[in-house]
Amino acid sequence: MGFKTRNEYISEGDDVLIFLDLKRTYLVKVKRGETFHTHKGFVQFDEILGKKYGDRVSSNLGVQFFLLSPNVYDYLGKALRATQIVYRKDVALITACAGIGPSSRVIEAGTGSGALTSALAYYVGEEGRVYSYDVKADFQEKALLNLIRAGVSDIVELKLGDAIEGFNEKCVDAVILDLATPWLVVSCAYEALRGGGCFVSFSPTIEQVKKTVKALEDDGGFIDIETIECISRRFQVKEGKTRPETLMIGHTGYITRARKVYR
Amino acid sequence: MGFKTRNEYISEGDDVLIFLDLKRTYLVKVKRGETFHTHKGFVQFDEILGKKYGDRVSSNLGVQFFLLSPNVYDYLGKALRATQIVYRKDVALITACAGIGPSSRVIEAGTGSGALTSALAYYVGEEGRVYSYDVKADFQEKALLNLIRAGVSDIVELKLGDAIEGFNEKCVDAVILDLATPWLVVSCAYEALRGGGCFVSFSPTIEQVKKTVKALEDDGGFIDIETIECISRRFQVKEGKTRPETLMIGHTGYITRARKVYR
Amino acid sequence: MGFKTRNEYISEGDDVLIFLDLKRTYLVKVKRGETFHTHKGFVQFDEILGKKYGDRVSSNLGVQFFLLSPNVYDYLGKALRATQIVYRKDVALITACAGIGPSSRVIEAGTGSGALTSALAYYVGEEGRVYSYDVKADFQEKALLNLIRAGVSDIVELKLGDAIEGFNEKCVDAVILDLATPWLVVSCAYEALRGGGCFVSFSPTIEQVKKTVKALEDDGGFIDIETIECISRRFQVKEGKTRPETLMIGHTGYITRARKVYR
Amino acid sequence: MGFKTRNEYISEGDDVLIFLDLKRTYLVKVKRGETFHTHKGFVQFDEILGKKYGDRVSSNLGVQFFLLSPNVYDYLGKALRATQIVYRKDVALITACAGIGPSSRVIEAGTGSGALTSALAYYVGEEGRVYSYDVKADFQEKALLNLIRAGVSDIVELKLGDAIEGFNEKCVDAVILDLATPWLVVSCAYEALRGGGCFVSFSPTIEQVKKTVKALEDDGGFIDIETIECISRRFQVKEGKTRPETLMIGHTGYITRARKVYR
Repeated sequence: MGFKTRNEYISEGDDVLIFLDLKRTYLVKVKRGETFHTHKGFVQFDEILGKKYGDRVSSNLGVQFFLLSPNVYDYLGKALRATQIVYRKDVALITACAGIGPSSRVIEAGTGSGALTSALAYYVGEEGRVYSYDVKADFQEKALLNLIRAGVSDIVELKLGDAIEGFNEKCVDAVILDLATPWLVVSCAYEALRGGGCFVSFSPTIEQVKKTVKALEDDGGFIDIETIECISRRFQVKEGKTRPETLMIGHTGYITRARKVYR
Repeated sequence: MGFKTRNEYISEGDDVLIFLDLKRTYLVKVKRGETFHTHKGFVQFDEILGKKYGDRVSSNLGVQFFLLSPNVYDYLGKALRATQIVYRKDVALITACAGIGPSSRVIEAGTGSGALTSALAYYVGEEGRVYSYDVKADFQEKALLNLIRAGVSDIVELKLGDAIEGFNEKCVDAVILDLATPWLVVSCAYEALRGGGCFVSFSPTIEQVKKTVKALEDDGGFIDIETIECISRRFQVKEGKTRPETLMIGHTGYITRARKVYR
Repeated sequence: MGFKTRNEYISEGDDVLIFLDLKRTYLVKVKRGETFHTHKGFVQFDEILGKKYGDRVSSNLGVQFFLLSPNVYDYLGKALRATQIVYRKDVALITACAGIGPSSRVIEAGTGSGALTSALAYYVGEEGRVYSYDVKADFQEKALLNLIRAGVSDIVELKLGDAIEGFNEKCVDAVILDLATPWLVVSCAYEALRGGGCFVSFSPTIEQVKKTVKALEDDGGFIDIETIECISRRFQVKEGKTRPETLMIGHTGYITRARKVYR
Repeated sequence: MGFKTRNEYISEGDDVLIFLDLKRTYLVKVKRGETFHTHKGFVQFDEILGKKYGDRVSSNLGVQFFLLSPNVYDYLGKALRATQIVYRKDVALITACAGIGPSSRVIEAGTGSGALTSALAYYVGEEGRVYSYDVKADFQEKALLNLIRAGVSDIVELKLGDAIEGFNEKCVDAVILDLATPWLVVSCAYEALRGGGCFVSFSPTIEQVKKTVKALEDDGGFIDIETIECISRRFQVKEGKTRPETLMIGHTGYITRARKVYR
């Protein structure tokens, strides 16, 4: 039932994150009688059934795996990909900049692989709603699989259509854009947002940021316009070897936000 | 009724974020017959009543202010402070690293000013629960005011007590520490967490990080141990003047996370 | 005798960096019979004469100061300012990107306060030469004072003139631009550079960088075009309090470099 | 004769940097009658002789290469490696923090591959001197090759010996450490430095930094103690695609500096 599950014991059909180490984790659905294969031998699901989340299981080669309940970021990391990766830090910041949480109503464009969509759905919860637009039907098909897998398909309405032509919803709390041309959607976002609602755009390039900020300023219906970049740095913490990691993701994208006011 | 409000029109008793510019915003409660004073003249609340969020109001000096519905980060920024500031980026990342959202049950220590507490309460929502421990009664009194103001006091249980002596709750989804000595609370966190639940600690210094990571490793009940630092950089976006801001917040703290497994 | 002096003992007319702590240092010329005033009392130069660099002196209030021989970066930090500050990290990187050192011949535009000029002169040494162009006579007057003070005025030729109109020198090793419109000087830089010589431009904004890179590409006479940003972060190192500093300089400028090839 | 050459025309025995693109460059010595092989065909040195630096040459497959005069950083990048890479930004900052330039006298430990040694030698020039210590004879043999190749072997004295046992030189301008245990060399550095001379240590880990700073403080003979980290970020500058590069070197090392005063 997706990342909202919080049963103590693992049952048939549950999702389990099988954890070997920081770099090797597997998100699987438990099916009685079946087997899961890894580089370190295979694991029989029948041995998993009835264990608790947090327990361990051994492969036939004696390698030990941990059984975890996947959370929203595990689903994010394991989403079937139609498009680029969305990083945890960016999802967290986008959500924060949008000011959204339980029971928020949010428009997203585009849907892409549905990875960000899943996360938004998780944060708005069952009382909330995510309307997700994309022009590509095949993206939305793959996205639907990711939403179902994450157990949030009931919270999301996938809408096939071009954001540039406008949104059907009114008075939403936030419009979140992960599009090549966010500046073309600024006036549609204005129409869809409630007074004080948040516009958030995530873009890798500076040209996109400049055009989007200019469109927000020209529109006349937005204040509190701000662009930030968030850089996440992993630390190696070991006695005598403590230091930031050598190789890092240097840039993913810029986040531009604004709030709607009546013109 | 706190940051969950989404009425279109402003009524008596509502919180309003009065916005002049990026650096001058005021979080006020609207009271019929009263006046709000600023450097740019005073505003009569009677003129605000009945307006929509997103509308504007003028002071007696003709300066125009925008009326916004405060969101979780506005409350965070305006919290009465007993302790250090908590930044939006850190709240967002802490929440993300904890994997929490609607209906999560979370332990926090210490309460401090209640700023992070408010944000956690917002994210877990009415179906969730935040148990917040602090040894200082006067901190918790101030925190309670901030929680009431943010409309989330029903979601939070303030608990006067030292985290080092253990938590009363069991099977919580996450334990979040913003303490001087998080490493002393690792075993208490283990006892309180469900299998697979997340430990998250926020600390400004490297010594705290090292001791905490060591305590997590020594405990034997944690995997997926990771430390990150998140650096947020504001961009000035103006034609011919686009650049990162000159002065920035260079460091707030390191986030260390881990997940519980049964020993 | 500027920052090249390396006498062991302090004599009349020598420059001394009087050091109280990291934030309070004073660059003075020692004059027999005179006194130097600080917030912590006054120091008599006669007490300094004959001491060694590295010795200490006390003010009349008993506060102890250290006597240091100023180096290139001390002169840089203490230059009379007509324009913006140039940071040590940027001087270091600009020099490195230009590939210059002892006996290099370098063109600089604009001179500004002469701070970067002094540093370039220091690095090319007495066998080298710096030709520094500026349109403003008053800047160059102030710059000359800074060059004399740093003891490098013999190495520098200050040239009143607009870089856009071309340079008189040929076959120089590097052209270094710290100008508002570096892209307008690209073809003049080509004319002045030897084959393989380096073009380096330092600019705070992205628009400057884009125009400059485009001009370099369009010119057809440059390869190895690269833009970097260098971020310097100070660390507080104290047992139990080790961490990056809270406030930092987040951005000074971008460095764009290229090498000349014959078209 | 190494990176100090500045002849216009390429002669027998000269070093040439053969440049294909940012990632493919080759540092070769021109030998009459010989051939240079690349993935893009071979180049005959006879065709290079008599050309100017900045000219081009074609391989037998018609691919065009540029002929550049190698500078100090080209030698650095192409040094035969016995040890880790030293980055341009770090060489630049280390040199700047040491306050050294033409005619400085510098001690370095350890020699390693001689890459940093070459750069130091370049900056101090023919009037200067670099005394480079290492315990490993085989490192110094390889280093000597790199120094000869870079044309600076006359400026450097390679000394086989352990820095911990002290340096033979006195009154040097700077002591530069790129060692696993720099804190053990602090008192030897004190003995070797002139008053006001600079101590600079480059270390990848925080534990090294802490021990070194503590040793400097405990010694009593150092002031102006400072630790910085320098992060270099490459920018992709293309119309519509301008952005920091995705993958970056996140950490190389911390630079700790201090100045000697008499105890």
